[in-house]
Amino acid sequence: MSKAKEFSERRMHLNEIVMRYAGLNTKRFFNLDTQIYKTGALPEKTKEMLGLVASLVLRCDDCISYHLINCHQQGVSDAELEELLSVGLIVGGSITIPHLRRALELWDELQTDAPKTE
Amino acid sequence: MSKAKEFSERRMHLNEIVMRYAGLNTKRFFNLDTQIYKTGALPEKTKEMLGLVASLVLRCDDCISYHLINCHQQGVSDAELEELLSVGLIVGGSITIPHLRRALELWDELQTDAPKTE
Amino acid sequence: MSKAKEFSERRMHLNEIVMRYAGLNTKRFFNLDTQIYKTGALPEKTKEMLGLVASLVLRCDDCISYHLINCHQQGVSDAELEELLSVGLIVGGSITIPHLRRALELWDELQTDAPKTE
Amino acid sequence: MSKAKEFSERRMHLNEIVMRYAGLNTKRFFNLDTQIYKTGALPEKTKEMLGLVASLVLRCDDCISYHLINCHQQGVSDAELEELLSVGLIVGGSITIPHLRRALELWDELQTDAPKTE
Amino acid sequence: MSKAKEFSERRMHLNEIVMRYAGLNTKRFFNLDTQIYKTGALPEKTKEMLGLVASLVLRCDDCISYHLINCHQQGVSDAELEELLSVGLIVGGSITIPHLRRALELWDELQTDAPKTE
Amino acid sequence: MSKAKEFSERRMHLNEIVMRYAGLNTKRFFNLDTQIYKTGALPEKTKEMLGLVASLVLRCDDCISYHLINCHQQGVSDAELEELLSVGLIVGGSITIPHLRRALELWDELQTDAPKTE
Repeated sequence: MSKAKEFSERRMHLNEIVMRYAGLNTKRFFNLDTQIYKTGALPEKTKEMLGLVASLVLRCDDCISYHLINCHQQGVSDAELEELLSVGLIVGGSITIPHLRRALELWDELQTDAPKTE
Repeated sequence: MSKAKEFSERRMHLNEIVMRYAGLNTKRFFNLDTQIYKTGALPEKTKEMLGLVASLVLRCDDCISYHLINCHQQGVSDAELEELLSVGLIVGGSITIPHLRRALELWDELQTDAPKTE
Repeated sequence: MSKAKEFSERRMHLNEIVMRYAGLNTKRFFNLDTQIYKTGALPEKTKEMLGLVASLVLRCDDCISYHLINCHQQGVSDAELEELLSVGLIVGGSITIPHLRRALELWDELQTDAPKTE
Repeated sequence: MSKAKEFSERRMHLNEIVMRYAGLNTKRFFNLDTQIYKTGALPEKTKEMLGLVASLVLRCDDCISYHLINCHQQGVSDAELEELLSVGLIVGGSITIPHLRRALELWDELQTDAPKTE
Repeated sequence: MSKAKEFSERRMHLNEIVMRYAGLNTKRFFNLDTQIYKTGALPEKTKEMLGLVASLVLRCDDCISYHLINCHQQGVSDAELEELLSVGLIVGGSITIPHLRRALELWDELQTDAPKTE
Repeated sequence: MSKAKEFSERRMHLNEIVMRYAGLNTKRFFNLDTQIYKTGALPEKTKEMLGLVASLVLRCDDCISYHLINCHQQGVSDAELEELLSVGLIVGGSITIPHLRRALELWDELQTDAPKTE
């Protein structure tokens, strides 16, 4: 199974556990977290790029994987990805490099399996 | 072996290595780290909840697992847990969600194996 | 004017600016941020203590001031405050000390002006 | 003097001190920090928005002010700003709110003095 | 009054408030925080440099000022300071730059008032 | 295979992927990241210790492993390591302990396989 598929299935499985315990406020937070990335004044593609950079500088692998997969689906190109990651790298410093490495490993798999851009 | 047991055994094994290298100051820090959670003006249960929220917003899985197991032993209920996690979620943001997911996966196992509360 | 009053007035003034620009999702976030601290399975007092510890380890002076004032209103005692701050101190380390200092300076003023507890 | 002008003048003054002490590597870092935001596959406007969200979730007022002024110059609209800040808010949590407040105070001043967008 | 003197006097004043509220565990933490920087296998000078880099990457102005003053007293040279700050800069990224600026402003004052090194 | 070898090989493999996607600015950042640790006014050994403490307080396992292996090669002794880790522990707090544990597990392996110091 691909890394992306494995990640998405595990995420879905854990979300089911979360929803079993979640109260109204937690459910509202999760709902808001979905709404905020929808196209408005800014297109979803830009918002996913913003989410990816935020996740990189905060150094959360799961959040990076999630937004990276969405960026791929939104048609972000290799060159765009490289530039947005470099903004995260300069802001967040070398401490982000291990996350950058794993991000590009996943991106490389996504592009190999289903290239959307060049 | 349960996740909680596996976690606790690995933690104990690594603590033995730490103690082989630890000087007086490191030992004092570890000792202080134990004392601070003991019942005083605030009961141990509240302190473990404080430790859990602090660990969630700082996004450390091992620290979360440790305080979650202690919260379970202190009789924190599902509803109390959900509410304390929601404080961590609103303060720390969606970047804490992957940790929240793994926390509830462990909690679900703890409640299934040895339900203390409803 | 007291530090607490000055803080609260400035906060209210800035919130008015925020609300002038806020869209629906931002307003929902602010509303959720209010709901989550209301008494449920855990009393408001405990939730304010959780919010204070989270703010201390994340080292945000404004968030600390806000929850500290609320803790004072909820009747948290000096001894309870000291113990909850010590949890934040051990978890977050000496990097939290400057915030701890300013927190106790504000607390000292609150207790001098309107002592609620001993 | 406007907040934006005061910020920029103080920043320039301190940069002069930095450059007096800076060695080759520090100078290279500062130079790289300038290059990375230049238009490439992504336009400068998008990169400044990425820099602003990264600064918000890492909670650095000076970095926020810097990218906010640049976003204003790049023609980011009120609605675009509000949406990008809401991504930072959901990712970074309520701990970012004090920074969000000060960001919108500065933005409000920028829009009042020299409105670029509606 | 010099920035360094002002900082040290305010710090001392706030420490008095802290000590009025501090329980045994908080006092032990503060004591440990003093012991750890004393010369052992590593000289105090190296430990102060370690404390300074840790404070820079965690972006705490007060902690930076404190260790910077100590580094000055330990005879750290301009060149040594510049190199240790550059390690913090590359690890922590451009988000540390505002702190780096203020650190060098204070250092410049310290060197002007009482140059210890060249 | 030893943990250190496994870590280094995986790191090299991922760096190859990074370099396939890296633009000029990312390459410059990686190059700068190498230059900054070279002996100048401060010896490489001190710089690696600074990098290790920075990595510990920022809680990045991969960065810790990398600088730990370099510290071992630079002849850092057990006692020096213990003292530098204790600076990171007091600054960064108990949240660093899980990383400290894994650091000493790797160090123990390095010292067992190829003891450089006593």
